Amino acid sequence: MNQKPLILVTNDDSIGAPGIRFLIEIMKEIGEVVVVAPDSPQSAMGHAITINSTLSIERLNKSDIEEYTCSGTPVDCVKIALSEILTRKPDLCVSGINHGSNSSINVIYSGTMSAAVEAGIEGIPAIGFSLLDFSWNADFTHTKPYIKKITQQVLDNGLPKGVVLNVNLPKNNIKGIKVCRQANASWQESFDKRLSPNGKEYYWLTGKFVNHDTGEDTDIYALESEYVSIVPVQFDLTAYHAIQTLNNWDFKDIE
Amino acid sequence: MNQKPLILVTNDDSIGAPGIRFLIEIMKEIGEVVVVAPDSPQSAMGHAITINSTLSIERLNKSDIEEYTCSGTPVDCVKIALSEILTRKPDLCVSGINHGSNSSINVIYSGTMSAAVEAGIEGIPAIGFSLLDFSWNADFTHTKPYIKKITQQVLDNGLPKGVVLNVNLPKNNIKGIKVCRQANASWQESFDKRLSPNGKEYYWLTGKFVNHDTGEDTDIYALESEYVSIVPVQFDLTAYHAIQTLNNWDFKDIE
Repeated sequence: MNQKPLILVTNDDSIGAPGIRFLIEIMKEIGEVVVVAPDSPQSAMGHAITINSTLSIERLNKSDIEEYTCSGTPVDCVKIALSEILTRKPDLCVSGINHGSNSSINVIYSGTMSAAVEAGIEGIPAIGFSLLDFSWNADFTHTKPYIKKITQQVLDNGLPKGVVLNVNLPKNNIKGIKVCRQANASWQESFDKRLSPNGKEYYWLTGKFVNHDTGEDTDIYALESEYVSIVPVQFDLTAYHAIQTLNNWDFKDIE
Repeated sequence: MNQKPLILVTNDDSIGAPGIRFLIEIMKEIGEVVVVAPDSPQSAMGHAITINSTLSIERLNKSDIEEYTCSGTPVDCVKIALSEILTRKPDLCVSGINHGSNSSINVIYSGTMSAAVEAGIEGIPAIGFSLLDFSWNADFTHTKPYIKKITQQVLDNGLPKGVVLNVNLPKNNIKGIKVCRQANASWQESFDKRLSPNGKEYYWLTGKFVNHDTGEDTDIYALESEYVSIVPVQFDLTAYHAIQTLNNWDFKDIE
């Protein structure tokens, strides 16, 4: 490739988050970078898009590269970047680095991963990066060589059609990289019920993460063993294995 | 089953939408119904959950069954129903009937389907129903026997582990039911750029739906042929077919 690859960078923690600032610095060593990221935190927004209200974008003038904030969700950021900001289709979209894990079932709630999935739907190779540390002051330093390596591999090899990568990075030491499947885990919800000053009940969603999966080929297992986990993620949600079962059901005699 | 099945009903168009009112009436013929649905429209919210603000629920007193509005997203509705409202695990969760199609890639943006997926994650058989008519005054009458049949089959047979159903219903005539895969389609975005009274640019997201798929086993093909489409949907997003490819990549020599 003679031309430097064009890399779209986004996230869900908002444009000022240390995680995206760190990711931008890495990507500047690899290609031409354009940033389009939310102007406010958009964690757990999943694949939400803004259809019942308007969006605005604003260019930052304090940066040496093209950077825009967007008033919408992470998926909105990708859509408006591709449609209104970028002059050519990017060679890659990277999302993150998220402050906190997006392993296993979290891929579904994650704005970081939904942004990557949206780029994938548009035919752009995409990677979501997340660090297993929720802290705003998390240390990302040790992740740099792994992020660079994975990014370079995606640029060199491309990604299989319909696939994006969900990359989670251990909080401290890293022993290597493992390709994994999504662990079967879920959140055990509990709601913290409170009373407002005027006596009205309200709730805070809290929960405990429960791993139901004892497999050694899962992302959670890899991360617990201090490996970077890479899960190839698809957006064809068809459960092909269930089609035959359903075809044996009785769909006759409908009055 | 001696006890009537307990059915949780939700949607994304809000509790007053004709689609959910129609679905509630059908479910009352099948089981004991509890409704927990958004107090305002939550279309295109995907799998968003509310973690940075509070939630409230309110019981409606004008109904002959238990009905609650929730201030959150469709997924919040399912979580709070299971954790705070229902006294036992429901036998089924149905979501919809959505005003508008959730076929093919729309499954990812859809609040209706995300509610069903959330129930699935919690181990509850779940179905999302959508009518191919965006109109608030859509006629649902012709869909009733198909919704009843599919619901009864799910109650009788259960669903394969990790699978929920995405059911789309033709707008007018129905010839039968087909089990399908998700069509490969996407939205071609365009943003309608406008100027506010004070001269600030803003955007409305619009778009054109494009089907890239010529297969005759897809949901779109079934719907175009006037069949109800049933796509089994999974929330393990791992692209298993891509794992071997990625394992051949060079992840060595990381500095």
